[in-house]
Amino acid sequence: MSDTPISSNRPRVLCIGMPVRDLAFRVEGVPPPGDKVPASAFKEIAGGNALNAAIGITRLGGRAALAGPMGDAAETSAQFILDKLGEEGIDSRHLLHMPGLVTPISAVMIDPGGERTIVTFRDPALWQARLPGPDALLEGCGAVLVEGRCASFALAPCAEARRRAIPVVVDVDAAMSPREGLLTAASHLVFSSEAVRRTAGIDDDAGALRKIAQLTPSFLAATRGPRGTLWLDPAGALQETAAFPVQAVDTLGAGDIFHGAFTLALTEGQPVPAALRFASAAAALKCTRFGGAFACPQRAEVEAFLAGNPAPSAQSS
Amino acid sequence: MSDTPISSNRPRVLCIGMPVRDLAFRVEGVPPPGDKVPASAFKEIAGGNALNAAIGITRLGGRAALAGPMGDAAETSAQFILDKLGEEGIDSRHLLHMPGLVTPISAVMIDPGGERTIVTFRDPALWQARLPGPDALLEGCGAVLVEGRCASFALAPCAEARRRAIPVVVDVDAAMSPREGLLTAASHLVFSSEAVRRTAGIDDDAGALRKIAQLTPSFLAATRGPRGTLWLDPAGALQETAAFPVQAVDTLGAGDIFHGAFTLALTEGQPVPAALRFASAAAALKCTRFGGAFACPQRAEVEAFLAGNPAPSAQSS
Repeated sequence: MSDTPISSNRPRVLCIGMPVRDLAFRVEGVPPPGDKVPASAFKEIAGGNALNAAIGITRLGGRAALAGPMGDAAETSAQFILDKLGEEGIDSRHLLHMPGLVTPISAVMIDPGGERTIVTFRDPALWQARLPGPDALLEGCGAVLVEGRCASFALAPCAEARRRAIPVVVDVDAAMSPREGLLTAASHLVFSSEAVRRTAGIDDDAGALRKIAQLTPSFLAATRGPRGTLWLDPAGALQETAAFPVQAVDTLGAGDIFHGAFTLALTEGQPVPAALRFASAAAALKCTRFGGAFACPQRAEVEAFLAGNPAPSAQSS
Repeated sequence: MSDTPISSNRPRVLCIGMPVRDLAFRVEGVPPPGDKVPASAFKEIAGGNALNAAIGITRLGGRAALAGPMGDAAETSAQFILDKLGEEGIDSRHLLHMPGLVTPISAVMIDPGGERTIVTFRDPALWQARLPGPDALLEGCGAVLVEGRCASFALAPCAEARRRAIPVVVDVDAAMSPREGLLTAASHLVFSSEAVRRTAGIDDDAGALRKIAQLTPSFLAATRGPRGTLWLDPAGALQETAAFPVQAVDTLGAGDIFHGAFTLALTEGQPVPAALRFASAAAALKCTRFGGAFACPQRAEVEAFLAGNPAPSAQSS
C-alpha cells in the first residue's frame, strides 16, 4: 500500500456483511457427485463479499470499515480474519462476535480457467446480529456498501444513511423479494446476472433490470463477469460497460472488488460510466492473480491499466 | 465405548496413512461449475482413510495405532485431530509432524441421499515422511491396514510385516501402477470399483480383479458401496458379498469402516466370507448416521444387526 496516499481525507466506506473463511482448493474441475478428486493447492483466505470489497477500497486508495457478525471470539479462525483486516488497514471495530456460533465458512473450488465454484455455510443465527447505532456506524461515512443478504441487521443503518444523503450500494448475489426493504433503501443496486433474473422472474438481464426499475428509484446494474455490465441510465435507457479481456486465473472475489471500486469511485464524485470502468479495470486485474480479494491491485496499477487500455467495445451477451 | 471389553489381548491393528481435516458441508447437491450454493450444516471432522479405519477398529472391539505424516505441530488443526484420537483411544505415538506443512484437508459435500463428494489437498512433501523402524511399529501387531497412496513411506514396514507373517490389508482408492510394491507386499488388496478398473485398465470389476490376480498372490476384492463386494476365492473363482440395504444419510468414511472392520475380523481369525459380512454390516450401520467415521457403530450394535439380518442375497451389478 506504499503507493496509496495516507490521508484522513480519503473517502471512508462502511461495508456491512459477514466475514467468511474461504477454503480455496485449486482443482482440475468440480468433481462429479460421489467422486473424490485431488487439489493441487490449498489456501485459507479471509473472505466474504463485504470483507473483500473492503480490501478493494483500501487498496484503491479509500478507507474501509467492516460491520457485521462473525463467530465466537474463542474461534481461532476469528483471530486469523481480524489479523488480516489489520494488515490491510481495515477498521474492524464494528464486527460482532456471536457467542457459540461459527464464522461462515466456504469451500471454494478454483479451476484452471480461474472459475470459482462455492459452497458456503452461514449459521442462520448470524442474521440475529444487532449492529451499533447509526451515529457510530456512519461517522465520517462517504458511502455504505452492503451484502444484499444482510437486510435483517443492515436495513436500519442503510435507511438512516439515505436520510443523510449517503449513497447506499447493495451487492445482490441471490434472489431478492420484491418486498425487500433494501430494494428501496438502496441508491445503487448492483446485481449478479443470476440474481437479477431470479429477482425479476425474467430470464433476460435487460428485461429483468427494467422490471425491477418499477419497484425502486435506485440506480440498477447487472454484472456479468467477462460479458461486462448492463445498467440503466437516469432516462431508463439500457447502457453497457464492457469488461476488460484478461487471462483469468482466479475470479474469487472479483465481483466484490468491482463493488468496492465502484463504491469508492462514487465517493470520489466519479460519474457512473467512469466509476463502472474503474471498477471493471480493478476486477479484471484481480482476476489475473491468485489469492481471492487479497490479489486486488493497488490504485496506481489500476490507473496505469486504464491509461494503457482504451475502453473496450461493448459486446452483446 | 462402554460395551467394548477392555483387554490388552484385544487385537492391535497398525493403520498407516495420512490424517485429514474433513470439512463437511451438507448440501442439496454438488454445485454446477461457477455457481454459489448454500450449505445447511457444517462440521469439521478428523478424517482420512487410515484414521477412519482406526476409529472403526476401536469401536468394534480392537486396538488401533495410527502412523503417518501430518502438518506442522504449530497447526491448531493438528491438536484437534490428536484430541479426537485420544477420545477414541487410538494410539497416535507414530504420527509425525512435518515442519512447515499443512495437514491434508478435504472439502466434503454431502447430499440428501448421503452421497459424499470430496476435494482433497495433500502437500506432496508429506510423502517424504519417514516412519519409525519396523520393530517399534509392528510391536504386538495383529495386522497392518495401509492407504494405497502411502507406499513411499509404508512399503518397508508392510514388507517387514509380511516377513513376520502379519496380514497387510491395502485400501486402494486410486489407480495403482502394476509395478507398485504394495501390490505384492499386500496379503489383502481391497479396491474401490473405480480404482480396480483404473488399475487394470478394464471397465469391468470382475475382469479387472482377474487381471490384477496375475500380478500378485494377494487376496483381491472390489467394494462397490450399496452394490456389495466382489472378491476372488483361493481357487480364483468370483464371489460376491451383498451389501445390507439401509437408508443412507452419510456415506463419508463408510468404506474406511469397512476396511477397518474387515482387518479386525481377520485378526480375530474370522474366515473371509464372515469378515466381509461383518465389514458390510459395520459400514451399513455407519451410513445411517451423520458424522463421518465418528458415526461408526459399536461392536454390540453390529452383532445385533447381523443377528437380526439374514445374509442379503447377492445382486449382480
